[in-house]
Order: sequence, then structure tokens, then C-alpha cells
Amino acid sequence: MFFASDNAAPAAPEVMAALAAANAGPAPAYGADVWTKRVAQQLAELFEHEVAVSLVTTGTAANSLALSLLCPPYRAVLAHEEAHAIADEGGAPEFFTGGAKLVGMPGEGAKLAPDALRAGLAWGERRFPHSVLVGAVTVTQATELGTVYRPAEISALAELCRSSGVALHMDGARFANAIATLGCTPAEATWRAGVDALSFGFTKNGALAAEAVVFFDASRGHELEARRKRSGHLWSKGRFIAAQIEPLLVDGLWLRLAGQANSAAARLAAGFERRGFRLSGAVEANEVFVVLPQRIEAALRAAGAVFYSWDPPADGEDGLFRFVCAWSTRTDEVEALLGVIDASA
Amino acid sequence: MFFASDNAAPAAPEVMAALAAANAGPAPAYGADVWTKRVAQQLAELFEHEVAVSLVTTGTAANSLALSLLCPPYRAVLAHEEAHAIADEGGAPEFFTGGAKLVGMPGEGAKLAPDALRAGLAWGERRFPHSVLVGAVTVTQATELGTVYRPAEISALAELCRSSGVALHMDGARFANAIATLGCTPAEATWRAGVDALSFGFTKNGALAAEAVVFFDASRGHELEARRKRSGHLWSKGRFIAAQIEPLLVDGLWLRLAGQANSAAARLAAGFERRGFRLSGAVEANEVFVVLPQRIEAALRAAGAVFYSWDPPADGEDGLFRFVCAWSTRTDEVEALLGVIDASA
Amino acid sequence: MFFASDNAAPAAPEVMAALAAANAGPAPAYGADVWTKRVAQQLAELFEHEVAVSLVTTGTAANSLALSLLCPPYRAVLAHEEAHAIADEGGAPEFFTGGAKLVGMPGEGAKLAPDALRAGLAWGERRFPHSVLVGAVTVTQATELGTVYRPAEISALAELCRSSGVALHMDGARFANAIATLGCTPAEATWRAGVDALSFGFTKNGALAAEAVVFFDASRGHELEARRKRSGHLWSKGRFIAAQIEPLLVDGLWLRLAGQANSAAARLAAGFERRGFRLSGAVEANEVFVVLPQRIEAALRAAGAVFYSWDPPADGEDGLFRFVCAWSTRTDEVEALLGVIDASA
Amino acid sequence: MFFASDNAAPAAPEVMAALAAANAGPAPAYGADVWTKRVAQQLAELFEHEVAVSLVTTGTAANSLALSLLCPPYRAVLAHEEAHAIADEGGAPEFFTGGAKLVGMPGEGAKLAPDALRAGLAWGERRFPHSVLVGAVTVTQATELGTVYRPAEISALAELCRSSGVALHMDGARFANAIATLGCTPAEATWRAGVDALSFGFTKNGALAAEAVVFFDASRGHELEARRKRSGHLWSKGRFIAAQIEPLLVDGLWLRLAGQANSAAARLAAGFERRGFRLSGAVEANEVFVVLPQRIEAALRAAGAVFYSWDPPADGEDGLFRFVCAWSTRTDEVEALLGVIDASA
Repeated sequence: MFFASDNAAPAAPEVMAALAAANAGPAPAYGADVWTKRVAQQLAELFEHEVAVSLVTTGTAANSLALSLLCPPYRAVLAHEEAHAIADEGGAPEFFTGGAKLVGMPGEGAKLAPDALRAGLAWGERRFPHSVLVGAVTVTQATELGTVYRPAEISALAELCRSSGVALHMDGARFANAIATLGCTPAEATWRAGVDALSFGFTKNGALAAEAVVFFDASRGHELEARRKRSGHLWSKGRFIAAQIEPLLVDGLWLRLAGQANSAAARLAAGFERRGFRLSGAVEANEVFVVLPQRIEAALRAAGAVFYSWDPPADGEDGLFRFVCAWSTRTDEVEALLGVIDASA
Repeated sequence: MFFASDNAAPAAPEVMAALAAANAGPAPAYGADVWTKRVAQQLAELFEHEVAVSLVTTGTAANSLALSLLCPPYRAVLAHEEAHAIADEGGAPEFFTGGAKLVGMPGEGAKLAPDALRAGLAWGERRFPHSVLVGAVTVTQATELGTVYRPAEISALAELCRSSGVALHMDGARFANAIATLGCTPAEATWRAGVDALSFGFTKNGALAAEAVVFFDASRGHELEARRKRSGHLWSKGRFIAAQIEPLLVDGLWLRLAGQANSAAARLAAGFERRGFRLSGAVEANEVFVVLPQRIEAALRAAGAVFYSWDPPADGEDGLFRFVCAWSTRTDEVEALLGVIDASA
Repeated sequence: MFFASDNAAPAAPEVMAALAAANAGPAPAYGADVWTKRVAQQLAELFEHEVAVSLVTTGTAANSLALSLLCPPYRAVLAHEEAHAIADEGGAPEFFTGGAKLVGMPGEGAKLAPDALRAGLAWGERRFPHSVLVGAVTVTQATELGTVYRPAEISALAELCRSSGVALHMDGARFANAIATLGCTPAEATWRAGVDALSFGFTKNGALAAEAVVFFDASRGHELEARRKRSGHLWSKGRFIAAQIEPLLVDGLWLRLAGQANSAAARLAAGFERRGFRLSGAVEANEVFVVLPQRIEAALRAAGAVFYSWDPPADGEDGLFRFVCAWSTRTDEVEALLGVIDASA
Repeated sequence: MFFASDNAAPAAPEVMAALAAANAGPAPAYGADVWTKRVAQQLAELFEHEVAVSLVTTGTAANSLALSLLCPPYRAVLAHEEAHAIADEGGAPEFFTGGAKLVGMPGEGAKLAPDALRAGLAWGERRFPHSVLVGAVTVTQATELGTVYRPAEISALAELCRSSGVALHMDGARFANAIATLGCTPAEATWRAGVDALSFGFTKNGALAAEAVVFFDASRGHELEARRKRSGHLWSKGRFIAAQIEPLLVDGLWLRLAGQANSAAARLAAGFERRGFRLSGAVEANEVFVVLPQRIEAALRAAGAVFYSWDPPADGEDGLFRFVCAWSTRTDEVEALLGVIDASA
């Protein structure tokens, strides 16, 4: 009953097999290998667009690297205040951008609302040069609260960005979960909606550690390569990142795995609701936020379930808890968790 | 006949097996897993000292991260002018330190000589604040030219550093190859000789991508962790770095693999010499630098051998070439290469 | 009727005279001149403490330089959300610190409250390394809203800082105005209360452009000098900064000028209150924040008065306005302004 | 007999008078004053080109600020190895650019030669991304050795830069001295020859502390302003920088003052040569480098002359010495110095 995070899941067997297969003999170093070339080609096809691609191994690196090309050091990156880049990346965006300001905005369901964005864009302009101008906006898809932006929502934000000369980045640590829900093409969810660059995450979705930074302006490839090297993220044995991604892209495995995680979350959410517990928001990806009384929490923990307190309960009160499903979460784990609740009722 | 670089070699089977074994089910994220804890403990035992350890996946990251703790942004890092940190890391040390100056010094066999170091230390002091003071010194063990510092040589440099209040870092991308040659303990080659921090490389020696940053002052662990996170090098599934290192540390596999690479290089070097070709320097690790006439180069390349021109020959002249052996270089590969030379004679 | 800002005031005649006097012939460059030495000595005497002193020409430079010594790049600077360092320095603290995070906290009268500080300190510790720890706290004396911290208030904050190993900086762009109000010694308001470093402003108080960064740990002088040089703030003709400060320190001119500004503000505030207008907070230094109806604003502007809308009035509503008095604000200017109000009543 | 440096000279009386005149009452802050506007207009006229202008107070700030717009953090700045930006700015270019690499090249008379530049440009391209590419080149006019680039020399360098997509900056700390020698227009010496940005120095030429960063692409003004603010160089009382520059630009005072310094240097150089002492290079601006025996050095120092040992003499040998003349160096000072030599002969 492990629901702490999808980043604690194992890697998919197809990924492990591909790693082993890639290990037969020497291969050119620093990304000159055939695996890396094939993945770049596959991503271009998947997105139906020329792309510049850079492979790294953490979402923090992918986001920060992307933002460093989009936001000059003397400007600000605007995001929802719960965005990973604001709250969970230990100052990495500040480091990679050379000291850009990270500015958090409120917004329901961890989504950046057009009004908040409009206010944020005006924020710097009003008092320049005492305040800094916005250089880039980043949105998380799926969001930190497990909700999913519709392409039209992204378009609306992108239009505001474009009219201010500001770049739009998408943190897609759970991009696969979002696409599995939306049912649209990756192109529709990104560049067609106005996204300039995507952090396309595979780590939470079956890889060991693999993320693709995707720029839809292919001419950015050179700078991307320079900045990846200088942040220590250019692997000598680069085949071992690409070889993780390739099997996920083949035959849509990435979408099937994300679909498995989403289904498990939907089943868990439905189970909570059937038992009368309130979800704090829509479950549109693989995360469930639910309000539980303390004694249920205690029973679950006693039974060995692992999950996060999002808003810890005061004494005797209800609390908010997060349950994350991964590609590897089994139906019987979900049922076992719900069974613990039933048994403690 | 692949002699381009040890970083193009495959991973050792023991490492692949350990990765697979580590993939059984979920594990705590962000370094809270048991593999990471065991590796930290093993390193403390190996070095016979309390250590602060941080695992990353590239030598560039390891060196730059270490230097960022040792050299403040307003000081200089001093190294041999052929050091990787100076010549091959794409500005990463400048990035991680926040803009420290990298200063290269000459020295035979790619070794930093005490006189050069003394001059370098005086360099900044003479005209401060117009010139910057030295904050850290980094030495490469084994060096970029395949030579190896004796512990007494390191001690001599360390003493100069200590008397100027300057930290000493060791880039040990090929530390295993050096220790295999020296036959001393890891402790004797590092902290006992005055080294403050070591980048201990495993990538070139059987891993996919794994390097340990080792500080011999364990109190630096907190800053190390903060800086690793902020540079995007904290893996969520951290077990998959540690699980590469663990089998290498068990029963001295790291030393045996390095010994294999060194032996192959020694055989190759002896073969060159027997055939009358001049080595440009001592072969003390797994790299051979040899002067070859153009027609030999041509014959080797025609036979499919892969290796670097270090100092490309002018028309009709001899050139300097680098041949690197890895843990996986087989005796028959070495003999095949020498055979091509014999056939072309 | 110029009440826009004290930074738009002219320089005091004593300062201009000292500049002219310092211009007789050549003088050693880069701070080796006698003026600079005398000012360092005078500041040590004024603060009754050994100090490391660095002279710069803007408050932004002084604050950012000080913070760069107090907060490492991988930590956060905590301040009141209206603090100049947060809202008005165009990202300079981020630049000088190498990318530290600036975190604003709420608090009445633009003062950082102990509870807010306690929460802020806990903020990073809770989720390290995903969140960054606090490295330094900065308080503004007098505050951006014209209030003044009592030494006991500073002590309370300093104690919290000390218990978390966090440094305390004071932005004293209007330190003179604060001391003129408090009537305590500069020592009591700073190091005796636990302040580690002070930006002591003279620009708003009679100088052309002169600020002293004062560290109460004199051993920081070397780093201070290195960082000043590297940020381009080491003047070759350094005597021309010191020569501005010296006449202000002699015979307490700095306090008399600040007292003049405070008196003018007090007179203006009393005038507003007598006419029934509400001050938005205590007037403890040289700034007056007052709620005025739109027609009064219009009458003042029509009469040529210059001042800022702090919270611009919605149509037909009252607004909040800021009036700043300088050392050079004359009583008749204050009376003229109040006279415009009377005439428009 | 003060020949240590032109940056130790006093300010010109016209500058002091202008400062005093600018001090009459309040003026808009942060560069919105009329002095700043007039200087921007005067510079556009002087250069016969639209310009973006930013006023700062040190050459180090001017150079570093300019380079930060021209060279991204992941590239290198190339300069002559004796250039101020390389050897004397305490790491400021590294700081302002966010960690760009500073690369020094050899070249006679402290001039960057086209061959060296060609080699330097190839340097990074050869091994990208392990080596960094060049982003900007900076030349010093007049050079650190008192020589002056002809416009055709600048053009030759600029052409190489343009063909590599690299920006060209001119460090004009002694631009006035160079133009006084060249007799060409400022336009011919800069943008017409392919210079993208100029640090136009006034501090060594009659000001207290004033340098203009001049971009010939006026669209860079916005970034220039953001970066100036963020480095703490935006003065609140900005009029006091502009008011120093204005009188120097009126009626060519800047050229007359520079001419005075150059004439004094020429007289001194001729005096040395007449007495049989060898100049180490052409005297084309206001600096004289001369080889003197130790006993002459001793006699001069005994007589109170102040000057630098450039290459200190070994025991009993001759040494190389630098004598710098300023706008304020009087003929009788030069003659007095030569007289000391005659007396000691």
C-alpha cells in the first residue's frame, strides 16, 4: 500500500530490458550514440514538429534548464504558488537562470488563472526598473493538485504571454498522466496551444531517471546543449538515458503506463467518495487529495499504508491527505487500502 | 578495437545485476533509501574516516559541486592547464561556484608542480583586490595524461594550500586507476595527504553514470545536499545511483576493474615500445600517449580502430595519439591493434 | 512643494564644500586615501566597536553587498514584504548573492513581527532540501512606511535569528532618521541589539551618493573588499565618496539633518490631522502616509505639489498618499502645502 | 611629480562647477532628470548615431555591464591577456555575465592581433560543448601599454567577430586619449569600425567618477537599464553623474584634457629618449613605459616621484617602469622629473 509518490515506484520491465540491451559493448560518448538520435527523432514525430531535445535525469534539472533559456537573469519567472519550481526545487530555477526572481501567484486547483497572470505581468511593468519584468511563465501539467489544464486554458495563458513578449514553459513531470486524461495529441496540448518548451517527464512514469527538455524552436538546440553541459547534466554514457525513454515511446507505452496510474487513482477516489469522504478537488490524473478523519489516518498508517499529510489535522479534526498512484500501483493495493478503511469503520 | 575513451565502455555485469535487483517495488525517494545509506557507510569504511557523501552522475557535476563548496565566487580555482575542470567542463565550475575564475598552470605530465602552485598562489595576493585570490586548488588523479601523483607529491601541494588557507580538491574520475597503480590505501592518497574533497568516479570504471563527491569534513553534508538539489542532481529514485556503486565497492571490484584497464594499457604501451614507437610520457594508469607516423594512423583507422588524435600530425609528420583502455578492454583487442601495425610495417 | 522623495533632495552645502576641498591635487587611488581611512575610523568611534567598512554609492548596492556576505546562494533572505530589498531593488539581492531566494513576510507598519519571522524560519526547515533554508534576515530602519523599530524589537528578532544560525542585516537607508527619533546610540540600535551588518545611508540625508556598509565583525573586511571590487563599486578616486560622509559625521551633522527632515514630517502630519485627514500609520521618521480625498489630491497637484499615490483612489473614493520630507524641506514648503488644502476646502 | 596613475588625478574645475550648479534644489530621481537626458542626447550627437546610454561610476562596472549584454553566461569573453577585464577587475566580468569564461590572448603592444583572435575563436568551436564558444571580444582603446588601435585594426578584428557571430566591445577608459591621438571622429573609431558597445571613460579624464556605457544598437536600452539597476549602479540622484560628463562634452573639453595628458607623456618620453633610456613601446597616449637602471629609480623615488614598477629590476639590473600623465600633469612636473635624472647622472 505505497501511495507516497509516483517517484518512488520501480522502473518498468521494458525499461530495464532496454537498458540491458544497450549495454552491449562500447558506444560513442556524450550523446553521439544511436539511442539518443532515435529518441530525438521519435519526439519530433510524437509532437509533429521540429524540436530541440536535451535529455536529463531529474525534473528539477529539466525545468530549470528550460527556464534558463526562456528567462534572462534580470527578469522574473511567474508560476502558481504551489508549482514545483517555486516550492520544491531548492532554488534550482534561481541557480540555472542566474538569479531570476521566482514569483508565485494564487489560483484554484493549482492552476494559474488568466486574471492572476494578467496581474502578474503588470506587476513588474508598473515600477520598472525597481521591480523586475516577467520573462517567462511556467505551468504544471498535470498540476501539483492532480488537475489537468484543457488546451483552451493553456491557449488563453499563452495569448497573454505572447502579448507581453513572455515565454511559456510547461512542467510536464506528469505530462503523460495529463495526456492520458485529455485524449488529445501531445501537439495540441503544447505548441499548438502556445507552449514554447516542455519538460517531458518519464521518471514518474516507468523510467529510472529520464526527462526530455523539448523546445519547439529547434534553433535553441545549441544553447540547450551548452547549458546542459555546464550544469553537469551531459552524460558521457548518454545511451543510458535515451535507452530508458525509447521503449516508453514505442507503441505508446508511456500513455498506457500513465493510464494505469490514472485508473488506479480514479478507483481510489471513487472508493473514498463511496465511503463518504470528501475529495478536495477533481481527480484528473494520478493524485487523490482527500479529507480524512484522524482515526482513519491512524488505521491506515497502522496497516502499513504510506502517504503524505498535505494539511495535517489539528487535534480531533479532519486533515487533508495525498495519495499518489503510479504505473505500478495494483488494483489489489487500492482495494486493500479501502479495505482497511472498511475494517476500521 | 575501441580505444577512444573509457567513458564509452559498457557497464559491468555486476552493476547491471544490482540495478535490476534494486528495482523490486517502491523505495523511499530522494536518497532516503537503503542503498544510498549503505554506500555512504561503505565509503566511510573505505576511507577510514567520517565523510559527507553526495552521489551524482557525471564527473563534471561532481567536480563543480565540490569546488562550489571549496571556493567562494570571488576567488579563483587553480589547476593544471590541461585539467578537465579548466579545459573540458564547458564552464561548469564557473557556473557552480557562481563565477569563480579558473586559472590554468603549466606542469609536466599534466601534474601541478609545487613551484607552479606557489606562483599561482602569489598571483592573486600580489594585486588584490584587482586580481582575485585563490580559493581552491584541484588536482586530477590519475591525470589527463595518464600519470599518477604519489602521496608525497599530493602532500607537498597540500602543505602549500594549507599555508595559504586554500582548499585542495582531487578530481578522481580515474581515482581507481591511480590507486590500482599506487597500491596505497584510499586514505593515504587523499585525506592523509591533505585532500579536503574527492570526486570519486565510477562511470569510467564499470558504472552507467555514478560519481561520489566525498568530503572528509563530515559537517559539510548539509551544504552539499543543498547544492546538489539546487543543481538538479538530487535523483528522486536515488537508489539507482547507489545501486551502481555498491557492487563496485563490495570485495574490491572497483580495484580489480581498474587493474584490468591498467593492465591492458601497459600491454599496449609495451607493444608500441617494442615496435619502436615513442611514448610521450609514463603510462601509469589506463591511458597511452604515443607518437605514430601518419601511415600507421591510417592503417589503424582503416582497420576500424577508434582512438583520438591528441596533436594531429602535419603533412608527412608524426602525430601524437591517445589510446584509452577500459575495464572491458580485452587482451585480444590490444593484440589485434598491434597486429594491424605489424601487418602494415 | 517637493515631497516625492528624500532621494531627490540636493546635497548639503557642507558636503559640497568637502568635495571641493578634497579635490586639491592627486591622491592615492582605490581607497588608500586619507579621507577613506578617516571615515572608517569615525564609524568605528560612532558605533563604539571595531568595524569593517565598505563605501558604495547606492542603497541597493549597500544592501545587496551586505546580504551577499550574510546569505549563501543556496539559502533565502527573509524580509518584510514591503522591504526595499524585496520590492524595489530590481533583483539586485538575487544577483549579488548568486541566486538566493528573497522571501517576503507580512507585518504591520512594514515591520517584521517575531511570529512572522518564526514562521519564516520554520518554512525552509520543514521541507529541506526541496525548500531552501533561511540564511539571512533583513529589517529596514526606519521602515518603508516611516515607522521605527525600538531596540527591544530588534533584539527580539535577533534572538530568533541567532537561535537558527541566521544573520541579521539592517537596511539603514534612513538609519539617521530612525536614530534621530529613538534618541539612543547607534550602538544600541545595531550590534548591541544583535545586528550583524548595517547599510548606513547618507544619500537621502545630505550626500550626493554615499552609503557605508558596516560589519560589526571586522574580520569580514577582506571579503567585503573583494565583493565590492567585483561588483564594480570600488572607486578609483575613492576620496570622493569618503569626503561626502566625513562632514556629515563631524559634530553630528547627520543627526541634525535627519532631525530637520523628521520635524518637517511631524509638522506636516500634524497639519493633516488637524484638518481631519487620517494618517495610515504612526509618523516616526520623515515619511507621512495620509488618506486624502481625490479633490484634495487634485488641488495639491494643480498647485504644483509633487508626491506619490501609494494606493491610488478609485473613482470618487479616498486614496492613500505618501509625502516625504528631506533635510532640505523648509517649514514654508510644509505650510504652503497645507495652505493649498485650506484654500481648497 | 605624481605619475602613478591618471585615476589619482583631481577632477577638472569645470566638472566641480557643474556639480555645484546641479545642486540647486530637488530633481527627479533615478535618471529622470534633465542632466541625464542632455548627456544621452550629446552622446548621440557626438557619435552621429542613435545610442542606448547608461551612466555608471567605475570602468569596471562599465565594462562588466556592457559585457553582460554581449556575452551569455555559457560563453567566453576573449581579450588581450593584459586587458583590464582579464587582469584587473577582480572577477567583475565573471560576476556580471553570470559566469562567462574570460580568456586572455597574447599580442604585441597589448593589442589583440587578428591571428590571435582567429585562434581564439576557433578554440571553443573545436571541442564544443566541452570547451565554451566565444560570445564577445573586448579591446582596450588606448591599450594598457599606451598604444592606440587604428580604425583599420579595429575593423579587421570586427570582421572576424562578425563572421563568428561574436560581439565586439571597446574598453574606452582612455578613449579620449586615443581619439586625441588618432584625430578621427568618435564614430570612425567605434561603430563605423564595427564596435557594438563602448565603455566611454571620463573618470581618468577630469571627472570624479563617471563612465558612459554606449550601445550603438539603441534597442538594448531596456536591458541595460535593468542590468544597471540590478548591479546597484542606478543612482537615485543621477544628475550628479550626468553633471560631471556634460561639461566635458561641451566644446570638446574631453579632447582638450586628453590632449594635455598625451602632450605631457610625449614630452616625458622624448626626455627619456634624449637621455638615452629605451622606451619599451610606442607612446601613443598618456602612458610611458621606460627601461631605467636601478640607481635612476632610486634617485627619482628619493626625490618624491610616484610611479609604478612594471617589471621590477633584479639586483643590479635595469627595470621597466610606468609613468602615467593626467589632464592635470603640468609641464614643470615633467621637467622636474627629468631634472632629477640629470642631477643623478
